[in-house]
Amino acid sequence: MVLSQPNEQPLNVVPYPQEVTMISCNIPVLPGSITIKSNIESVILSISISRYQNLFFPFTKNIVGDDSNKIELSISIASDDETLQLGVDESYSLLIDQGTYQLKSNTIYGAMRGLETFKQMIVYDVVKNSYSLTCAEIMDFPTYQWRGFLVDNARHYLTKDMVLHIIDSLGYNKFNVMHWHLIDTVAFPVESKTYPKLTEAILGPHATISHDEIEIVVAYAKTYGIRVIPEFDVPGHSSSWGVGYPELLANCPGFPASSVPLDCSNPNTYTFLENFFSEIAPLFEDDYFHTGGDELVIDCWANDTSIQKWMKKMNYNTSDAFQYFEDQLDIIMTSINRKKIAWNDALQHGVKFNENTLVQTWTNINDLRVVLAAGYKTITSFFYYLDRQSPDGYYDIHYEWQDTWQDFYASDPRLNITSNAENILGGEATMFGEQVSSVNWDARVWPRAIGISERLWSSTEINNVTLALPRVGQFSCDMSRRGILSGPLFPDYCPLPEELSFSLKPVYQLSKDEVNLILKKKF
Amino acid sequence: MVLSQPNEQPLNVVPYPQEVTMISCNIPVLPGSITIKSNIESVILSISISRYQNLFFPFTKNIVGDDSNKIELSISIASDDETLQLGVDESYSLLIDQGTYQLKSNTIYGAMRGLETFKQMIVYDVVKNSYSLTCAEIMDFPTYQWRGFLVDNARHYLTKDMVLHIIDSLGYNKFNVMHWHLIDTVAFPVESKTYPKLTEAILGPHATISHDEIEIVVAYAKTYGIRVIPEFDVPGHSSSWGVGYPELLANCPGFPASSVPLDCSNPNTYTFLENFFSEIAPLFEDDYFHTGGDELVIDCWANDTSIQKWMKKMNYNTSDAFQYFEDQLDIIMTSINRKKIAWNDALQHGVKFNENTLVQTWTNINDLRVVLAAGYKTITSFFYYLDRQSPDGYYDIHYEWQDTWQDFYASDPRLNITSNAENILGGEATMFGEQVSSVNWDARVWPRAIGISERLWSSTEINNVTLALPRVGQFSCDMSRRGILSGPLFPDYCPLPEELSFSLKPVYQLSKDEVNLILKKKF
Repeated sequence: MVLSQPNEQPLNVVPYPQEVTMISCNIPVLPGSITIKSNIESVILSISISRYQNLFFPFTKNIVGDDSNKIELSISIASDDETLQLGVDESYSLLIDQGTYQLKSNTIYGAMRGLETFKQMIVYDVVKNSYSLTCAEIMDFPTYQWRGFLVDNARHYLTKDMVLHIIDSLGYNKFNVMHWHLIDTVAFPVESKTYPKLTEAILGPHATISHDEIEIVVAYAKTYGIRVIPEFDVPGHSSSWGVGYPELLANCPGFPASSVPLDCSNPNTYTFLENFFSEIAPLFEDDYFHTGGDELVIDCWANDTSIQKWMKKMNYNTSDAFQYFEDQLDIIMTSINRKKIAWNDALQHGVKFNENTLVQTWTNINDLRVVLAAGYKTITSFFYYLDRQSPDGYYDIHYEWQDTWQDFYASDPRLNITSNAENILGGEATMFGEQVSSVNWDARVWPRAIGISERLWSSTEINNVTLALPRVGQFSCDMSRRGILSGPLFPDYCPLPEELSFSLKPVYQLSKDEVNLILKKKF
Repeated sequence: MVLSQPNEQPLNVVPYPQEVTMISCNIPVLPGSITIKSNIESVILSISISRYQNLFFPFTKNIVGDDSNKIELSISIASDDETLQLGVDESYSLLIDQGTYQLKSNTIYGAMRGLETFKQMIVYDVVKNSYSLTCAEIMDFPTYQWRGFLVDNARHYLTKDMVLHIIDSLGYNKFNVMHWHLIDTVAFPVESKTYPKLTEAILGPHATISHDEIEIVVAYAKTYGIRVIPEFDVPGHSSSWGVGYPELLANCPGFPASSVPLDCSNPNTYTFLENFFSEIAPLFEDDYFHTGGDELVIDCWANDTSIQKWMKKMNYNTSDAFQYFEDQLDIIMTSINRKKIAWNDALQHGVKFNENTLVQTWTNINDLRVVLAAGYKTITSFFYYLDRQSPDGYYDIHYEWQDTWQDFYASDPRLNITSNAENILGGEATMFGEQVSSVNWDARVWPRAIGISERLWSSTEINNVTLALPRVGQFSCDMSRRGILSGPLFPDYCPLPEELSFSLKPVYQLSKDEVNLILKKKF
């Protein structure tokens, strides 16, 4: 056995595990030669197992090797508790040696993380057209318990199948939270039985998300150990609520329609929110519920004569009005039995959150320090903006665009934080959707977001770009063979299985005769 | 009739035509209701027509409208000369009015440009699920006669079908040159019968390009009026030649293998090049042949003892050696009846090109001025680097990555050039392939390269980003409905035909029972 050093990364696995001991063997395997047995019965785990068994061998034609190696991976799970909430135990250990194939974990979710690692240890050799299983002993657990990814379903409509496809890619990367940004200024795609006119604000025909679809998404995500947290962004970014229900909006003539927030002074606003949230929240299983709160155009409130009167009566300034709004949200959260997540903006307006609020810091590191100084728990996302040309202002511009993955990789959530760093629970990659639809989603997100998934899972000591690069490139190829359109980071060769649905073809097939005629070749 | 003003762009066509007169009618059309008749018989044109007829109506189910409007587009072409070379006449005129559907051009290639415009005038209404044909009179021609696109087939291997798919996307954008960067340091995928060991330098099994495949690519491109120009980059970027034929390379110990150029002192080098180019050139029909010449590590020559001796004997410095190399290339070009294109680097080394050389300026605008001052004809590409995080050093960083299309759009090839500007024949978009494979090609290139295609075709007066944006966004949606993975530039709604091969699906289909079991729902 050879113990891996901090400056060596001999195992081709992403995100890199916490402790790796390489074992000097390589076990030839053939499609169909790996079975998996678990000590507990779980529908959720069995779906995960079934899925991985389909992913182990992307190529199955004329594979070289003999079928004498029958491998049974034995999964041993300590607890059959399937609860999936913040802090769930995702640790696992793997021992792969000649004749020994063991995966141990405390929960089914830890077992899933181990299955992903095991999958990546089945290495395909494109020259030999053969597979081998890498031997190693691994002890692994996440550095951060919150490893989120924001999916924006408002700026572009994503079908249920596309969201499930995205969840596949998140699962492969050991992300464990899908932050589902469901509505925004431009659209309100979520169907409501209580308030059916909300979906008058959709981008186009059938661009809606039904309750059944939400349940499928939540269930599917659970088979990857991914918590799904909805965001309903209020009181700003909320003008879409007003398409069907204009009485919900403030009235500030002269302001662009897109910047008009909810009316904070009208008790009906809160009744509406409570009714709607009470309808929607039970579709999600997570303790947390995201109520947004970013980029409120507070001057609209100041210019609404009715809100002005109310503020005068209450002896409020706009900051107090925002405080009142957040306090009402807290009451609603209690009534629907959820904990609030809010973007950090309100703090800049002088608002104080309930101490149980989880603050999502999206602006910058100085604001993060403010959040921490005030004692809140937080998650950070300002390092991880996948839509930006320059992911944040701290870095030089790379020559090549995809090398921005290195910026993410360099950005530990606790980077340059000295006080209350333990209150940073993790981070979230954000893929805001102005310029991304199903058409270009994968290629925009991947492989760059691998820099985020490894940063949030692996040890902070695993941070050398040069060492990571070949692993990340190989994993990107692996992902593309699973159907995720994740491109390369350097010249390499990654042929895909023929049957993959995104093999691109010309729109017209020239016959040999046509070629000859076009080139006026002699017959 | 309403004449369009320079500051109005009422026609939703990309690239925007030179002269547009809107006619106030809109003709409802149904799938199958448009036929096309041409006054000349041409296999090339008939393939183009057949292809467009398949593209006119991406959706065919339950289309709303009546089928009384039978439309026959009448194509009238002045000449049946199918020669496709620099300067080919691509002008056309279109008159679409109630009962009048005329496309006129001087060549079949002009007719193809008109067909693309006509295709874009068939507008699909996603809300009504109906089609209508826009009425207008159009006179159109390209501002630049060289509108090229560099496809790098060396850093990643692109299959023949992928190259044809790329040609589809170039044709839709009225590009007229595919600059095929076929080999580079990392790989030599082009098969040779004369020198079969050249393809020992391939990226992986079967990653080769055969003569038959080259012919198909040339023929297919011709059906879009796209000239295909091969680049064999010498004497730098050439170490791949040495995998099978090490005697071709200089010998400079201590230099990275990837930077070793061809040996300029060995007469066999030139015999080899002449034999190989004589074998390859006839597969291409274009008058031009690109011999590269960029980023030569000339110090390697200075450190090769054998080259040192030769230079001493010839009384050469390294610059003279480079001059000698380029002069030998000119002799070979004459023997294979081709005109040379070369990157501008040699000029920086003091080399003088043959006056017939077309110089491709890739470095910067100051070097472009040097090229022009020396009297060469040139094409520019330094504005149009699709791989870069910041396309060039002249622009501010945008917030969103895709907005880099605006940098391309702002960059007329003759921008800030006052002398000999007429010698700039046009420009070339470059998609160097370090970080792009078939998996992410489309989403990396499009819709950003639309900024280049319109810049090179349309009038320089058509340069307002705000006016262009809705057209470009709509065209990007149109492209995605034709199978090009071109994403959005702003929130919009662009559903795709179900049968499109890149509709992404999850890897596992949950049954309803499984959803209920996972969510522990009561039955």
